[in-house]
Amino acid sequence: MADASPYTPPVEDYSFLFADAFGVDLVARATDGALTAEDATDIIAGAGDFAASVIAPLQTLGDTAGARLEDGQVTLPEGFAAAYRAFVEAGWVSAEAPESAGGDGLPGAVRAGLGEIWNASNAAFALCWLLSQGQIHALDAAASPEIRETFLTKLVSGEWTGTMNLTEPEAGTDLGAIRSIATPKDDGSWAIRGQKIFITWGDHDVADNIVHLVLARTPGAPDGAKGLSLFVAPKFLVNDDGSLGDRNAITTVAIEHKLGIHASPTCVLSYEDATGYLVGEVGGGLAGMFVMMNSARAGMGFQATGIADRAYQQANTYASERLQGRALDRPAGAPIAEHPDVRRLLLSMSTKIFAMRALGVYVGDLLDRGESDPAASTLGDFFVPILKGWTTEDAQQVTSEAVQVYGGMGFIEETGAAQYYRDVRITTIYEGTTAVQSNDLVGRKLIRDNGAAAGELFDSIDETVIKLRSLDHPTASRTAERLSRAVAASRRATADLLGFADSPRDAYGVSVPYLMLLGTLSGGWMHGLAVAAVLESAAPSPSDASRLVAADFYGSHHLPRVYALAETVAGGEIA
Amino acid sequence: MADASPYTPPVEDYSFLFADAFGVDLVARATDGALTAEDATDIIAGAGDFAASVIAPLQTLGDTAGARLEDGQVTLPEGFAAAYRAFVEAGWVSAEAPESAGGDGLPGAVRAGLGEIWNASNAAFALCWLLSQGQIHALDAAASPEIRETFLTKLVSGEWTGTMNLTEPEAGTDLGAIRSIATPKDDGSWAIRGQKIFITWGDHDVADNIVHLVLARTPGAPDGAKGLSLFVAPKFLVNDDGSLGDRNAITTVAIEHKLGIHASPTCVLSYEDATGYLVGEVGGGLAGMFVMMNSARAGMGFQATGIADRAYQQANTYASERLQGRALDRPAGAPIAEHPDVRRLLLSMSTKIFAMRALGVYVGDLLDRGESDPAASTLGDFFVPILKGWTTEDAQQVTSEAVQVYGGMGFIEETGAAQYYRDVRITTIYEGTTAVQSNDLVGRKLIRDNGAAAGELFDSIDETVIKLRSLDHPTASRTAERLSRAVAASRRATADLLGFADSPRDAYGVSVPYLMLLGTLSGGWMHGLAVAAVLESAAPSPSDASRLVAADFYGSHHLPRVYALAETVAGGEIA
Repeated sequence: MADASPYTPPVEDYSFLFADAFGVDLVARATDGALTAEDATDIIAGAGDFAASVIAPLQTLGDTAGARLEDGQVTLPEGFAAAYRAFVEAGWVSAEAPESAGGDGLPGAVRAGLGEIWNASNAAFALCWLLSQGQIHALDAAASPEIRETFLTKLVSGEWTGTMNLTEPEAGTDLGAIRSIATPKDDGSWAIRGQKIFITWGDHDVADNIVHLVLARTPGAPDGAKGLSLFVAPKFLVNDDGSLGDRNAITTVAIEHKLGIHASPTCVLSYEDATGYLVGEVGGGLAGMFVMMNSARAGMGFQATGIADRAYQQANTYASERLQGRALDRPAGAPIAEHPDVRRLLLSMSTKIFAMRALGVYVGDLLDRGESDPAASTLGDFFVPILKGWTTEDAQQVTSEAVQVYGGMGFIEETGAAQYYRDVRITTIYEGTTAVQSNDLVGRKLIRDNGAAAGELFDSIDETVIKLRSLDHPTASRTAERLSRAVAASRRATADLLGFADSPRDAYGVSVPYLMLLGTLSGGWMHGLAVAAVLESAAPSPSDASRLVAADFYGSHHLPRVYALAETVAGGEIA
Repeated sequence: MADASPYTPPVEDYSFLFADAFGVDLVARATDGALTAEDATDIIAGAGDFAASVIAPLQTLGDTAGARLEDGQVTLPEGFAAAYRAFVEAGWVSAEAPESAGGDGLPGAVRAGLGEIWNASNAAFALCWLLSQGQIHALDAAASPEIRETFLTKLVSGEWTGTMNLTEPEAGTDLGAIRSIATPKDDGSWAIRGQKIFITWGDHDVADNIVHLVLARTPGAPDGAKGLSLFVAPKFLVNDDGSLGDRNAITTVAIEHKLGIHASPTCVLSYEDATGYLVGEVGGGLAGMFVMMNSARAGMGFQATGIADRAYQQANTYASERLQGRALDRPAGAPIAEHPDVRRLLLSMSTKIFAMRALGVYVGDLLDRGESDPAASTLGDFFVPILKGWTTEDAQQVTSEAVQVYGGMGFIEETGAAQYYRDVRITTIYEGTTAVQSNDLVGRKLIRDNGAAAGELFDSIDETVIKLRSLDHPTASRTAERLSRAVAASRRATADLLGFADSPRDAYGVSVPYLMLLGTLSGGWMHGLAVAAVLESAAPSPSDASRLVAADFYGSHHLPRVYALAETVAGGEIA
């Protein structure tokens, strides 16, 4: 078994995105000058070094050894526990937690970069961190002082890890079908009974305790989602002095044998009158879960970007080293990267990844601004399902293209390319499938505000088009024309979709194509912003020329998909 | 571990394709009336029954147990050897072999259906048969009477199986880099020395002997592909009386650990002065291999169609049985197939599969006609890379959509959906990657005949458009308009590509998008032909209505991709 491929963090891209691409120092704006883009780039570089040296080397081992369940205890492959301890000690858990919860409260744009980096280096490992962050947000929003003291502080320090317990065998996308029951006990705690499935990092041996955030139904609660309440239930009960007590009545019944992310233990947990503590109000469970939804869904976008970039890096390295055949006008002995179609595959990957990465930074920043600006909040909510849905769908293509670059070697597991292709496949499914994202986008957002947020996106792109036209450069002109046509098609598609407001089967029959249209368009916008920033830069960098080629490639190979998708949207459901 | 999912052969589709879709009984025409479409449908039904009952049940076991190498001998999972014997005894190997080689010589349209069925039921198993068929064609074209007597008869009877030995560690797509050496011996045989990799079914225990077809270089041969000759080298040497003698000096050094098709042993073979026999002329190796290329590449199209259809069938069954949530206007308790986006996914899959299947029959028939009709031969050669490249690429999407229908369960290996997603990934790679197909299409076919074959395709679609317009039916009218616009875009893209005849990097930089354009267009044409056949039918069948919905769906969701791809083609290489 080969070692895991090396990982090179995309520090230069993040520097460009923080400082230049959006015409403002995003980090300074978000932190009122407490941090600058330069500081944030240093943080990204530091995280990248840590990820490359500590986490990335476990990538292949995690896949081949996987998590194991023996005698009711899950064990991670050798090295995972030490890596997790190092991760905690280096402060990477608390770095992202909100200040209100005792964390460093790094801005959303920076967290987008960190999310990408942890997932690129090892997506299975990163899920542990990602679930903890989600729970930190949920408890920070709704938990009582006692729960904050007992559980939240330990999650923020990273000493304990968190999970989300939603799904049951008959309740997946439809949370209203949840059957687990929580019954009040005399001491103020609750007895939880039921079975939860697909619990990511539901048990493990890398930290001392695990805090489960559980959706359950209280006695006499109404049917459906309104009857759900939120509880924390630890693996080990906590004594009054904060020390760990008995094991709670939560049994790991099984772990799943999955297509990918083998080192992320996906558990079936059985609650047998396990002790839990109410978070928020009775009946407020779904609202409590929604608090963490935006950050968790955006996090899935960063995960998909990370997996895609690692797959790209490995394929790019191979293509630069492998000699085979003669690449047309290139000298004999040139690497396969010089073959026109291998070059096409590599540019297809890298230009999608830049678009995803840039949109991640943009949305991360937008969600921050949304905390004080209702318009930004609305736009941020609009973008989250696009970021999650489109990034994860396009990441499937990227990892498949990486396998293709390898040819027959890509199908051999030892090469490592296949792992990304397997790992990434879950990202369009969990935290809400692409259909769930698209229904959120169309049903809860687009139709409710009659296309206002979509219109804001289109207007912003119009502004970029105007700027690009003013720059007197062939790539800028081409990009402007392409964006202008794509926006026109997108406006028509939006009008078509709004026309389906009273025929929901038509709207939901093309909501995924519409989501992909907006994602593809937004990606083109990100490239347009990059072109403008590069051409307006007073101090051009060596990578500027490649940013122009990237924009031309995206505009020629990816953006035209908007026309195809617009035609699909116009048709509504085909019955 | 769950049992393999049941398999339902697509008998009705093949009956429609043989008898109705092309406005003529394809089978009667190909056999001068010796067989009719009805006979051929019976053959498909018989093969389907056999596949469903004997081969399909080994699908999951083949994946989980896989082929194993111990002490230099490869062993297949339990049941494979018995299934192969039953396959041979039922006559399915000789059924497809040409009459000149002692087989039944079934027409190409029927072989398309059989190829799909064997691969749908078990792609790993089917590869054994597929490689034997390829070698049968190669030996039938070029082997001496002695080799025919000793080896070809045993391959046609199915008693022995065949392999293709091309690839070496430094010679993949570039066969000219092959280094294996064959040295003449006094007795007229040759001593072969070298290492061959990626040898599908290179060793196994399901038949008594294995005949390797080997490309090697003779002493003093020119460099590159011109210096290659073709040899047969059996696993066991054959005595003069036809009985098996000593083991030949061919060692199975390793078998690969692959992403999919685990029951297909992919071998590293070491030739240590192994005895081989020349096939054809010295230096004629590549020509000999090309004989089997068309049939092998078309066979990959049938394989991808088969894997895609099995994935679809399993997802469709799940979606019809799984209850979750409420599907808008449908009654509570409706299966998830009623949700608009699940319905979209299912139609996306089934309409692609019909297009692939129909194109497979069309090309299979065209290759038959090409044996006596030079124009059909040229058009058949033009379509082979499209069939192989486009079908295998779109099959990736279909198997991914099947995983998506399952949601979280799709990521669990026991569900079985992930196996198709893994198995199908090789199909865009072996027998020439999609780039190799597209370079063949553009370089050897499109540009050489200055677009004549492409023009014939477009003219044929024009005829279908005229017929559809005459039929006075909304689906026919819509399909006609869509095809008409798609053909116009395709003509422009073809002119753009021909404009790159003197700038090959531009041509090869968009040759894969061009191949996908022609495949997508051809799929739309197949649906257009189906609409015309249904509306002209004197005796409508119950499935006719669904064929109209399928054409509308393909026209709305898949065909518009032609516009996006045409724009990409126009741009040439982005540099």
